[in-house]
Amino acid sequence: MSKHLTDFILHLADSTLILGQRNGEWCGHGPVLEQDIAITNITLDLIGQARSLYQYAAKLINEVSKLSESEVPPAEGFKAASEDTLAYLRTEREFKNFLLVEQPNSDWGQTILRQFLFSTWQYYLYQQLKEKGSDTTLAAIAEKSLKEISYHVRWSGEWVIRLGDGTAESKKRMAHAIQELWPYTGELFLPAPYEKVAEVDFDKLKPAWFKKVSDVFNEATLLVPQHVYMHTGGKTGTHTEHLGYMLAELQYMQRSFPGCEW
Amino acid sequence: MSKHLTDFILHLADSTLILGQRNGEWCGHGPVLEQDIAITNITLDLIGQARSLYQYAAKLINEVSKLSESEVPPAEGFKAASEDTLAYLRTEREFKNFLLVEQPNSDWGQTILRQFLFSTWQYYLYQQLKEKGSDTTLAAIAEKSLKEISYHVRWSGEWVIRLGDGTAESKKRMAHAIQELWPYTGELFLPAPYEKVAEVDFDKLKPAWFKKVSDVFNEATLLVPQHVYMHTGGKTGTHTEHLGYMLAELQYMQRSFPGCEW
Repeated sequence: MSKHLTDFILHLADSTLILGQRNGEWCGHGPVLEQDIAITNITLDLIGQARSLYQYAAKLINEVSKLSESEVPPAEGFKAASEDTLAYLRTEREFKNFLLVEQPNSDWGQTILRQFLFSTWQYYLYQQLKEKGSDTTLAAIAEKSLKEISYHVRWSGEWVIRLGDGTAESKKRMAHAIQELWPYTGELFLPAPYEKVAEVDFDKLKPAWFKKVSDVFNEATLLVPQHVYMHTGGKTGTHTEHLGYMLAELQYMQRSFPGCEW
Repeated sequence: MSKHLTDFILHLADSTLILGQRNGEWCGHGPVLEQDIAITNITLDLIGQARSLYQYAAKLINEVSKLSESEVPPAEGFKAASEDTLAYLRTEREFKNFLLVEQPNSDWGQTILRQFLFSTWQYYLYQQLKEKGSDTTLAAIAEKSLKEISYHVRWSGEWVIRLGDGTAESKKRMAHAIQELWPYTGELFLPAPYEKVAEVDFDKLKPAWFKKVSDVFNEATLLVPQHVYMHTGGKTGTHTEHLGYMLAELQYMQRSFPGCEW
């Protein structure tokens, strides 16, 4: 039970951290200064959300490890699990993020679209976590995050409309981004074993997400893809080749200098 | 004395390893199959040379550490310095490779040109190490490597001529590659403190390299740049931002699983 809850929280944390790491690559490279700052601020929000989730997961892990041997033992240089050990010292196969968030950046349209697809998923999921509230800590993290997520959905949705219903070039690029990313959206609604205890209502989550995405695509004069083969595996640790390269960069400091702190 | 010799060997090993790592990125991406295999074979030669050099450096370090505390202590999971500890567990600031070899790949012409500039430097330096022979181990490594290096110089030189004296497009690309890489060639002939004992005759090395490069450029109808500002620092551990990313990938396995072996 506790292991499942911890895994669910790690799945939320990993997805948020990895998207933050990807978005961070835009820092200093956005198309205009204001949007460069916008995506970087969103990135900071995502990393902040990931921190809250990792801290909570670490707390649960440390509580369990008092009773028995933990599945995620504290690593060299650390006395216990912490946000740092969980983000920096787990291997690729232990990461439970969506495949969607580890895909490489291509153009601005693709980054915007991914943010919209992800933030919309976050929005409806976190509403559930907040409203059900059987886990009060998770409900509190969800409530706090939702203030940020509402803005992320609006900002990215407006960009999808602006680019989809923009020039011939921007429309073509958005259509291409949809083609590229849609096969990674199936996983958002495929329950992992650890989600059985998480009280996520996937029967409500998927239609809510789909309606919002369809509405924005319609306004953007973009087509919702049909009959697409969906990639899966990220939620249970089977990743595309891209995650390994991300972790190599992300974890290099802690791997090289175990226990280092600012 | 011994520290200087070790540093000199590490400088040779690091430059060879890092160029091998860069070239390895071409594996499966060469412009035609035969040349894909050629650059990959050269890469294996470079890594083989680096191994011989690291093994010799490790031997010297372990001999010294019997007498006093070594400057490169064996790392966690290792009883002594080895080719693996030296390649995988030293930090960016400890790497002594040329800035030239850590620059990112751009097109095939740039990779070819870098190989030609580097292999020509290797050729004349290793001739000296082989002929002077006051260090018999280094002389033997140089002699063995020269058989490979002679081929690398010929192969890359022929490509420089083919592309430089080829189409308008290939000539433009080679000229661009020269402009990009030439500022990193000054370092090849700037003695580092540890080279004072290495008996390298830079007064002979530079003109020999320059004559060979000029001859090939002339045949390729390419201009030798004049009055170019030269970047330095790699030989003494001050690197461009690119090396850190390379080491993050190169060292990830050993950093994550200290002491792991095949």
